[in-house]
Amino acid sequence: MSDTRVYLFDSTLRDGAQTHGVDFSAPDKAAIAQALDVLGIDYIEGGWPGANPTDDALFADPPPLKRSRLCAFGMTRRSGRSADNDPGLRALVQAEAPVAVLVGKSWDFQCRVALGVEPDENRRMIAESLAFMAREKAEVMYDAEHFFDGYKANPAYATACVAAALEAGARWAVLCDTNGGALPHEVGEIVAALVAQGIPGDRLGIHCHNDTDNAVASSLAAVRAGCRQVQGTINGLGERCGNANLISVIPNLVLKMGYDVGLKPDGLAQLTEVSRTLDERLNRAPNPHAPYVGESAFAHKGGLHVSAVEKDPRCYEHIDPALVGNRRQILVSDQAGRSNVLARLREIGLDVDPNAPQVARVVDEVKLREFKGYAYDGAGASFELLARRLLHRVPDYFRLTSFRVIDERRWNARGELITLSEATIKAVIGDEHHMTVAEGNGPVNALDAALRKVLLPVYPQLADLRLVDYKVRILTPEAATAAVTRVMIESADSAGNRWTTVGVSPNVIDASYNALHDSITYKLFSAGVAAATHGADATAAE
Amino acid sequence: MSDTRVYLFDSTLRDGAQTHGVDFSAPDKAAIAQALDVLGIDYIEGGWPGANPTDDALFADPPPLKRSRLCAFGMTRRSGRSADNDPGLRALVQAEAPVAVLVGKSWDFQCRVALGVEPDENRRMIAESLAFMAREKAEVMYDAEHFFDGYKANPAYATACVAAALEAGARWAVLCDTNGGALPHEVGEIVAALVAQGIPGDRLGIHCHNDTDNAVASSLAAVRAGCRQVQGTINGLGERCGNANLISVIPNLVLKMGYDVGLKPDGLAQLTEVSRTLDERLNRAPNPHAPYVGESAFAHKGGLHVSAVEKDPRCYEHIDPALVGNRRQILVSDQAGRSNVLARLREIGLDVDPNAPQVARVVDEVKLREFKGYAYDGAGASFELLARRLLHRVPDYFRLTSFRVIDERRWNARGELITLSEATIKAVIGDEHHMTVAEGNGPVNALDAALRKVLLPVYPQLADLRLVDYKVRILTPEAATAAVTRVMIESADSAGNRWTTVGVSPNVIDASYNALHDSITYKLFSAGVAAATHGADATAAE
Repeated sequence: MSDTRVYLFDSTLRDGAQTHGVDFSAPDKAAIAQALDVLGIDYIEGGWPGANPTDDALFADPPPLKRSRLCAFGMTRRSGRSADNDPGLRALVQAEAPVAVLVGKSWDFQCRVALGVEPDENRRMIAESLAFMAREKAEVMYDAEHFFDGYKANPAYATACVAAALEAGARWAVLCDTNGGALPHEVGEIVAALVAQGIPGDRLGIHCHNDTDNAVASSLAAVRAGCRQVQGTINGLGERCGNANLISVIPNLVLKMGYDVGLKPDGLAQLTEVSRTLDERLNRAPNPHAPYVGESAFAHKGGLHVSAVEKDPRCYEHIDPALVGNRRQILVSDQAGRSNVLARLREIGLDVDPNAPQVARVVDEVKLREFKGYAYDGAGASFELLARRLLHRVPDYFRLTSFRVIDERRWNARGELITLSEATIKAVIGDEHHMTVAEGNGPVNALDAALRKVLLPVYPQLADLRLVDYKVRILTPEAATAAVTRVMIESADSAGNRWTTVGVSPNVIDASYNALHDSITYKLFSAGVAAATHGADATAAE
Repeated sequence: MSDTRVYLFDSTLRDGAQTHGVDFSAPDKAAIAQALDVLGIDYIEGGWPGANPTDDALFADPPPLKRSRLCAFGMTRRSGRSADNDPGLRALVQAEAPVAVLVGKSWDFQCRVALGVEPDENRRMIAESLAFMAREKAEVMYDAEHFFDGYKANPAYATACVAAALEAGARWAVLCDTNGGALPHEVGEIVAALVAQGIPGDRLGIHCHNDTDNAVASSLAAVRAGCRQVQGTINGLGERCGNANLISVIPNLVLKMGYDVGLKPDGLAQLTEVSRTLDERLNRAPNPHAPYVGESAFAHKGGLHVSAVEKDPRCYEHIDPALVGNRRQILVSDQAGRSNVLARLREIGLDVDPNAPQVARVVDEVKLREFKGYAYDGAGASFELLARRLLHRVPDYFRLTSFRVIDERRWNARGELITLSEATIKAVIGDEHHMTVAEGNGPVNALDAALRKVLLPVYPQLADLRLVDYKVRILTPEAATAAVTRVMIESADSAGNRWTTVGVSPNVIDASYNALHDSITYKLFSAGVAAATHGADATAAE
């Protein structure tokens, strides 16, 4: 084994499944395991056989993996029982997985208080369970729970537990900071102390939690001190504050520290996709600020930054975003000038002569609108439509000639509270005039429902358009009656696209309509849909 | 200065304002600065005078600060110009702030490529600008931009820039990892090298970004190596992946490393509230997994964990959550909720017997309502009304029997866009029935106007009530049609009181009305106003 080879162990499906609000189905687990296999992760911990039906289903019929080794998790034998007579260990033996991971205590205080077991018996439980399982599986590991707290309290005992597991046949002993309270320098010093005592680093793993915001740093410190296996989860899933985020650990190890983590040649460049796909599967909005893979991770705002990045990316980028499958993003904002707008135009594929008068028109229009309260920084789709309208053309898919929304709250004859929103709209699509009415749970929802009622028959592409977030802000709160309202709407479709649009008006319903109009237009325009009739092919004036 | 005193420098209002999607108003900035002052942060960087109207407004009329020193940010003088003739430096001099922070290059590559300036001239720019500003301000600092990249490329030049600033009179030279690419061990080694060369650690600051997911760890590494000033932002706001999160840095330094960061005695216990209040102000959902302060940071899921935690919290908690103002969350027990509610009741001056059955009623009602989507954390006035209604009485100042709001958007005969909101309400005040209609710029504004029309003659105390902020959030965005809407309204009066109320309903107008009702009731109740007639003195059922 080369000294720079670090093994990766993914626990998204086991420790990550403890995340509050996360609930993997068996097909979810199979799909995620296969994505990790394609990436080239060494070990995939699938779950805990016997703990729940999902994990039983996974280990009864595991997904085919080409490269990764599937691991089943369990506990060391119970106190006062032999290993080959322990129901938990038997469930592990029967699980269709080449690797078994056995968790056990390594903190004497924990043995006594949480388990009610004497430390000597705990050490026998570790040794006998690992020895038994080593005869049954291709590979076994020992998860040393609470290792760092245990080491601080009683270094000799914690070290003895690790040594017992390795002597009994464990391929790896994994040092777990279960409560997440250890700091990186402590982790580094303790690992170095173990290695100095003769425990080989290439049989030690590290498993950190993020309770001090240091899970990634502690994992790196352990590797620098000798550990050659790193455990973590995709996007840092995990209970409380999460586990070490492998999506951050991997590029740090490979690009900055020169380690080989065994990924396939194109594995690194898939990180952004793997991260976002997991979020999609869990119905979570990806964190735009995530290191390496977030949408904003390589975003540039200030005009000065932007012009410097264009001179030489090293000026403001710590790595080439393409290495992890991400891309540079130029933001438009009132702090930005011409260079931001130009870079943003190139990004959306509008190649224009920097000196063309239309560019000045876009810059002026963005400034004017941001002064009025628009925020194009967070609403890329509205910026793109604005720019395309000024530079070229955007089809006018529909035009609303009027709307009226009625909201009521009253008590009916039986004394029940009735709240009702009803929208009546008049719209022109192509050459046809439409009038319709719809209800919703609130005025914007009613307006949206009425729009869909007239638009869907003409534009079936809108069937999977969903509004996933709706935010309202009053921009001049101190000028009460003259206040302007900004509405941001985030939309999504079934292909996983997400886009944000903005509307501004003194009237919140009108601002919402403006953002809604942009959202629908963006969806149709991106899908290459033509406007309903050629007679309506005018540039939208809005 | 004691060797364990570390100074805190908050850049939420300057570097944090670069966050994609964040847009502070001048009142936002003043309110955040005052919250940081109450906490006891040493330095608050307010912004960049001359860069935009918001920052100009802040420095023309800065909020009164008792403890923190307000800092104004700017650049070293331009090349080829004298410091006292530089318009940027002049704007800084005029800014009402005792501290000036001047950013300059310390990477020779950057001088040439981004700035087009020879390294020697850059060093003169640093020295002359700092010397000039040191004569004008109580304190000056030098932000050494790209310091770590610069040091790796040319250690002698980077060190010379830092030394030049300190010799010219800078109280601090702040080592900035501008691109965020340095790892904690590199930061630690480079700081140690500077200190070994004789640059005193108590004149060095550290400024990290989170691009490798290590901003907190790198900040701690710098302190261990000697730096005695740490820069960061609340909740890790900042461009790209954010700045070092002070909410994580502070408890790590104080609780785990034994440093004194100069907070007020109860400052540490306010961290959770400060973190969540900033999110509320920015209309962002707080991150439940945030280290130390997240809602899930001390959550225990399984029964095993829970019983072990109850035997001894050290089994599964790295610190006592109360130290940072957070609380344990045990999903199978209401213990945590109870003590929180009791603490809040004491806070608003309702001294109740902890074992009284009414306390259990308040706990149950809060839990039920938070399950439905209410958020009492950010809406103290609504919590107080709820508790007072359950424990004592709150006058029923008015009752709305029904309302109807109509919003229209149409073009008039002259082709002008007309948007109109009109609210019709029926209300009972005392024994009298009222019906009225009013217009507004949006449905909530119209409803508010109609309410005032009937209430003001009876309750003239409402004349100075203003709605200063209005925020809407969809709580179950993935369940589009079943979505519940939460409205938070911040109100103020001419005496400088501010209070926040919350309303929840599937219908946004109804949710707004609920929050409005609480806001008006709170204002009247706080002013000691009696309900219009004694016949109406029933507990409000809402």
